[in-house]
Amino acid sequence: MKNYMNEALKLAEKAGKKGEIPVGAVVVRNGEIIATGQNRRETHCNALGHAEIEAISSACEKLGRWRLDDCELYVTLEPCPMCAGAIINARLKKVVFGAFDKKAGSCCDESVVNLFNLPYNHRPEVWAGICEKECSAVLSRFFEALREKENK
Amino acid sequence: MKNYMNEALKLAEKAGKKGEIPVGAVVVRNGEIIATGQNRRETHCNALGHAEIEAISSACEKLGRWRLDDCELYVTLEPCPMCAGAIINARLKKVVFGAFDKKAGSCCDESVVNLFNLPYNHRPEVWAGICEKECSAVLSRFFEALREKENK
Repeated sequence: MKNYMNEALKLAEKAGKKGEIPVGAVVVRNGEIIATGQNRRETHCNALGHAEIEAISSACEKLGRWRLDDCELYVTLEPCPMCAGAIINARLKKVVFGAFDKKAGSCCDESVVNLFNLPYNHRPEVWAGICEKECSAVLSRFFEALREKENK
Repeated sequence: MKNYMNEALKLAEKAGKKGEIPVGAVVVRNGEIIATGQNRRETHCNALGHAEIEAISSACEKLGRWRLDDCELYVTLEPCPMCAGAIINARLKKVVFGAFDKKAGSCCDESVVNLFNLPYNHRPEVWAGICEKECSAVLSRFFEALREKENK
C-alpha cells in the first residue's frame, strides 16, 4: 500500500513544482498501476483538473469501460465532493488517502461529510490517513513556500 | 430560464437517441449559452461522462479559466455528488435543474444530500424543478422504451 502512496507522492511533488497544489493519485488494478493523475487545475484552467479525476478518466480510457469495480485509487489528499462522487460513479472498490482535508474533504466523518456513508448505489472500502505525515508535509511545504513568496 | 432549459432538453433528447440516459446541460454567461453538454458515459466508456461535467469543462476551456462565478448551469436532471462537487469547485453562481433524482441527487433536502447546504467554500443559488414535467418525461420515455426492448 505504501508503494502506491509513494508513487502518488511523486506525482504530488511534480504538481507542486508546476505551481499547482501538490496532490497526486494512482489507480491500481491487480497490483499494477494502470493510471496516474496530478492536480493541474491552474495549468489547464479547468475546475475539473484534480488528480483523482485525471487518474480515473485515464483508467477508464485504458480499460475501455466506465466501471472500475476491480480497481483501487490511491491519493495523497482526502477527495473533495467532486472526486468522491467520481469514485462512486466509477464504482472503485477501494480508496486509500493520505492527508485529511477538513475544509473540502468528503470521505470521512471528521471532514465536511462522508459521502461513502450515504445511501448512494456504491460504497467503496476506505483507508484513511495512510502515509499521512508525508502527504501532509508535501502540502505544508508548498503553502509555506507560497507564503514566503507572497511576503517578499 | 425556460429557453435555456429547452436547449438542455434538446441535448438530453440527443443523448437518449444514442442510447445514453437522456440528460442535457448548458452553461450561460451574460444571457448567452457558452457551453453545452450531454450524457456520454456509454459512448466514451467514462464514469465522468455526465452532461454537467462536459458543459463545465467546455465553459472553462472557452473562457480560459477554472472560475465560473459569472456563469449559470441549466441541467435537466438534479446533479449527482460528482457534478454538484464540480459546480462547487467551478464556483458557478447559479444552478437550475429540472427533474429530481431521489437515488443520486445531491442538491436538495429531499434527495440523498444537499451538498450546497454544507460548509464548503462556495454555495450556488439553486432553482429546483424548473420544467420538471418535461425533464422527467424525457427520462420516463427513455426507460419505458428500454424496458420494452428488453422484454421483446
